Amino acid sequence: MTVKPRIRERIEQLRERMRETGIDIYMVPTADFHNSEYVSDYFKMREFLSGFSGSNGTLLISAQEAGLWTDGRYFIQAKQELEGTGILLYRMGEEGVPSLLEYLKRNLQEGDTLGFDGRVVTAAFGQKLESMLIPAGVMLRYQEDLADSLWKERPDFPCRPVWIVEEELAGQSVQAKLADVRREMKQAGADGFFLSRLDDLMWLFNLRGEDIPCNPVALSYGYIEEDQAVLFLQKAIVGDTLRQRFAACGVTVRAYEETPRFLEMLPDGRRVLLDQEQCSYTYCKILQKQGSVILKENPTSMLKAVKNEKELAHMRKVYLKDSAAVVRFIYWLKHCIGREEITEYDAAAKLDGLRRQTEGFLDLSFPTISAYKQNAAMMHYEAPQEGSALLQPEGMLLVDSGGQYLGGTTDVTRTIVLGELTPEERSHFTAAASGMLQMSDARFLYGCTGRNLDILARQPLWALGIDYKCGTGHGVGYMLNVHEGPQSIRWGYRQTSPETILEEGMTVTNEPGVYREGSHGIRIENVLVVRKGEKNADGQFLYFETLTYVPIDREAIDTSCMSSENLSRLNRYHQKVYEKIAPYLNEDEAAWLKTVTAPIL
Amino acid sequence: MTVKPRIRERIEQLRERMRETGIDIYMVPTADFHNSEYVSDYFKMREFLSGFSGSNGTLLISAQEAGLWTDGRYFIQAKQELEGTGILLYRMGEEGVPSLLEYLKRNLQEGDTLGFDGRVVTAAFGQKLESMLIPAGVMLRYQEDLADSLWKERPDFPCRPVWIVEEELAGQSVQAKLADVRREMKQAGADGFFLSRLDDLMWLFNLRGEDIPCNPVALSYGYIEEDQAVLFLQKAIVGDTLRQRFAACGVTVRAYEETPRFLEMLPDGRRVLLDQEQCSYTYCKILQKQGSVILKENPTSMLKAVKNEKELAHMRKVYLKDSAAVVRFIYWLKHCIGREEITEYDAAAKLDGLRRQTEGFLDLSFPTISAYKQNAAMMHYEAPQEGSALLQPEGMLLVDSGGQYLGGTTDVTRTIVLGELTPEERSHFTAAASGMLQMSDARFLYGCTGRNLDILARQPLWALGIDYKCGTGHGVGYMLNVHEGPQSIRWGYRQTSPETILEEGMTVTNEPGVYREGSHGIRIENVLVVRKGEKNADGQFLYFETLTYVPIDREAIDTSCMSSENLSRLNRYHQKVYEKIAPYLNEDEAAWLKTVTAPIL
Repeated sequence: MTVKPRIRERIEQLRERMRETGIDIYMVPTADFHNSEYVSDYFKMREFLSGFSGSNGTLLISAQEAGLWTDGRYFIQAKQELEGTGILLYRMGEEGVPSLLEYLKRNLQEGDTLGFDGRVVTAAFGQKLESMLIPAGVMLRYQEDLADSLWKERPDFPCRPVWIVEEELAGQSVQAKLADVRREMKQAGADGFFLSRLDDLMWLFNLRGEDIPCNPVALSYGYIEEDQAVLFLQKAIVGDTLRQRFAACGVTVRAYEETPRFLEMLPDGRRVLLDQEQCSYTYCKILQKQGSVILKENPTSMLKAVKNEKELAHMRKVYLKDSAAVVRFIYWLKHCIGREEITEYDAAAKLDGLRRQTEGFLDLSFPTISAYKQNAAMMHYEAPQEGSALLQPEGMLLVDSGGQYLGGTTDVTRTIVLGELTPEERSHFTAAASGMLQMSDARFLYGCTGRNLDILARQPLWALGIDYKCGTGHGVGYMLNVHEGPQSIRWGYRQTSPETILEEGMTVTNEPGVYREGSHGIRIENVLVVRKGEKNADGQFLYFETLTYVPIDREAIDTSCMSSENLSRLNRYHQKVYEKIAPYLNEDEAAWLKTVTAPIL
Repeated sequence: MTVKPRIRERIEQLRERMRETGIDIYMVPTADFHNSEYVSDYFKMREFLSGFSGSNGTLLISAQEAGLWTDGRYFIQAKQELEGTGILLYRMGEEGVPSLLEYLKRNLQEGDTLGFDGRVVTAAFGQKLESMLIPAGVMLRYQEDLADSLWKERPDFPCRPVWIVEEELAGQSVQAKLADVRREMKQAGADGFFLSRLDDLMWLFNLRGEDIPCNPVALSYGYIEEDQAVLFLQKAIVGDTLRQRFAACGVTVRAYEETPRFLEMLPDGRRVLLDQEQCSYTYCKILQKQGSVILKENPTSMLKAVKNEKELAHMRKVYLKDSAAVVRFIYWLKHCIGREEITEYDAAAKLDGLRRQTEGFLDLSFPTISAYKQNAAMMHYEAPQEGSALLQPEGMLLVDSGGQYLGGTTDVTRTIVLGELTPEERSHFTAAASGMLQMSDARFLYGCTGRNLDILARQPLWALGIDYKCGTGHGVGYMLNVHEGPQSIRWGYRQTSPETILEEGMTVTNEPGVYREGSHGIRIENVLVVRKGEKNADGQFLYFETLTYVPIDREAIDTSCMSSENLSRLNRYHQKVYEKIAPYLNEDEAAWLKTVTAPIL
């Protein structure tokens, strides 16, 4: 039986369970208990039920209908994967497409029940459902993972070893970080702080794990008060050494499995700070029953986002090594194309291999995207091991990749010319490169958020009537998740979502692109760090330091549509690429790098 | 007796009135009954009592103390004008200076009374006072203009004739506008809508007046329900013809003086929409007593901001005529400088005269700013009739001016080279011009607000470590106020103040500048209109149409610090300036315009 009839069968089985338990619509989001961006296989229930493998999407199942909501990155992929399953695709944000909430409101009547597993739904979303549905007489049942019993071969609950980040590498001790957190708690008037976001936990406790592929995190929780700090880790991985190490910094280690019981046993009346966008609905309900909750962004989020000088020093070194691996990959690709049979998958494997050989390498920071021609129009394409496209000496290959190293997390995209390009491809590449270069060179006043800057990257594309349906940039973790907040570079206005002012030490990607369905895809991405520049009577000026040093393919640049300013920016960047990366290369590679970074006059 | 002893006397008289009526602190803001940006002389009570003539300031008087709060634009002027009056200056926003509200909280005890005329305080501010002072046991007495009887020679209440804007000029009938307003009222769940903002009233009723200098508005109110519309105008100016004209479009005209009685007589339980930032505290209290109020931005504000095609067609013509007047002024200035004695004041008078000769001219849209050298560093400098600076054949003159015409309101700034410039002045001018040109040429997606675009104008200045401490642009009225909202172009992030998405047909100024205290000031300002461009799968693109066609002084451009892109923008703009304006000029002027708009190669 191929996948698609199986999907139909699974949905029918779920409908039976729904009938048995009196649930009218069952909701399956894509999340683990920590609202992690990527989830381990155990948590891929939505994929198991729908067949859609993208990283974002919510499945709704009613007696008559099954629908999947996903965002612009996945429209093409979802369309393909859902075909034949009977599941309707709801393209989020498109005109005339009802949002998930609108759909629920329309399709749930008085007396109906909406079911979901409250552990994989955020408190914020759960409260939205409450305030919309309960006044309409709809009930919420959130205590059960209804589909669990259908998934006979469900993968094991992840439980991998953890390791401690020494202070030299972390740049700050656990005690110092706890002191910062307690200061923020005090300001918010909180007695306690319940932390469920995994990368924040790893940052705070100078710990790393491997419970989620590419994200060096361990499933854990944290609970902090003025005079206690508790770290919850799975029983199976905690030994005496770890317990003692943490005891020495004033942290008690307890069992992950007992977190809900611990929260239920908290003395009455505690005012506990939690981040409703991160904490699960189930745990928020427990804490609300015990006392009161203070809904506020995790204070760890901003503290973690601002990298300290030791972290930055390690990152600079790591980015050079990582850039060198990418440069060697491009050298290899340019020399082998047309001579060897190389598929998208092979190319990704080659690059992954070069990274693996790099000193300090731990893991990839996300699965390498190696997308040829029209495949690159899919922002998050993953080349299959079998049957991925064979590269030809024409068109372009988009490679978006990164590594986890001792000393930093990287993220870089280059679109590489394999042979003949169309004038349109060259014009699109030139505009994307211009946007990337302009943004990198921004000088701006303290107080700017990403919304002030986004247009610098997008303007050359908007001038051509082209947009990319995603943000321009996201924060990047330090030996942590490749996507990190709260800062971002995007343009859309949402009155209710607060913006983050860019602070010195924050990292941000800069990745404008062009995505043309059925034709080609282009993205050029560097990682930047916010730095302080001149301070004068007009204010504190900031600028970006670039961490990534990989050439931008000159063969795709159409100088007739690049401004003189951007051309000088390109030449200046390329000169630095050569200076910084050549020392990592052999003679042939260095000679080649010299030619591809030579100034365009 | 000179002014200052008189001020002391007036304050003592007011204190006597306060003792008689049991008021502990009396507050005198700067506003008329409509919270207008500029007020007519009748409403300059704060100036009468304090001697401070700036356009923004609030006076507080207690038995022991008198204090005046004003903003940074007026610190120097207020200090001079308040000297010897015994009134303390409170510099708003400076460290350690209590805000007005903080001062009131600190100085009013339980049982005390704060007095003010509730008609010149907004409902929003009145509610702030209520929520802060009433819980503390302080009473508010707002029903009386306590100082009125002290002002023996108070100017007459303004009461000038009104005129009707014919539909051809307005582009939309009163009936059609009322239908739009009623649709918005319905959506807000309002039975009635009380409108007190004068320019919105003029727009809605296709009416104009002259009760405020430079703002062609009449003191008026409006009250709309589904089946009635009432326009309140002063008895003395309403004749039968006007009454009949309005009756024909379903509008009843009633006496302005009777507005409060009318509101008091409304049937109980009416839900009345009002804008608390615009409506007076007094009228809001009346409406709250009658029923309930719905606090919401005036729906007329967005409707008025989006100009219709007929309005735009008239504006295009008016802007050409107005640009021609400015071009002739620059021609005159360039030819007379160094030959005749010209002061800042003379230059302004010359330009005002050229405007007055222009067909369709009604009034200036604001007092002309003519500021030489360091005077131009003061954003709101007004040259005095006696003793204004004598222009020399060196440095630059900043001229910011505009007119009210049949068919539009204009606003334009040029900084004109009179002779030798420093390299710094040239570099600053070039950056400001680059910013102005970049912004004018923006292509952007629907959904952008001014915060997305602001950096296009500011970036060339920020690159030099320079900022201007104001927004880049504001909306411009149509035969109405030169400053109009709700749209704006600015960069600062304030989470609580909502942004306005730029809609097709909105006008906006584009006026980057450099202000160097004691040295020089530069501002270059065009007016733009938002227009629809290409619509494709990526969205609806928008662009700006430029309305202003006046050369940008090439003598101040340093081509070595202007990008090739901006240089082409300048040349393209100048070509259009010549094509569009030459037909309005005599032969000599046209020949001169040709040379100053010739392309820079």
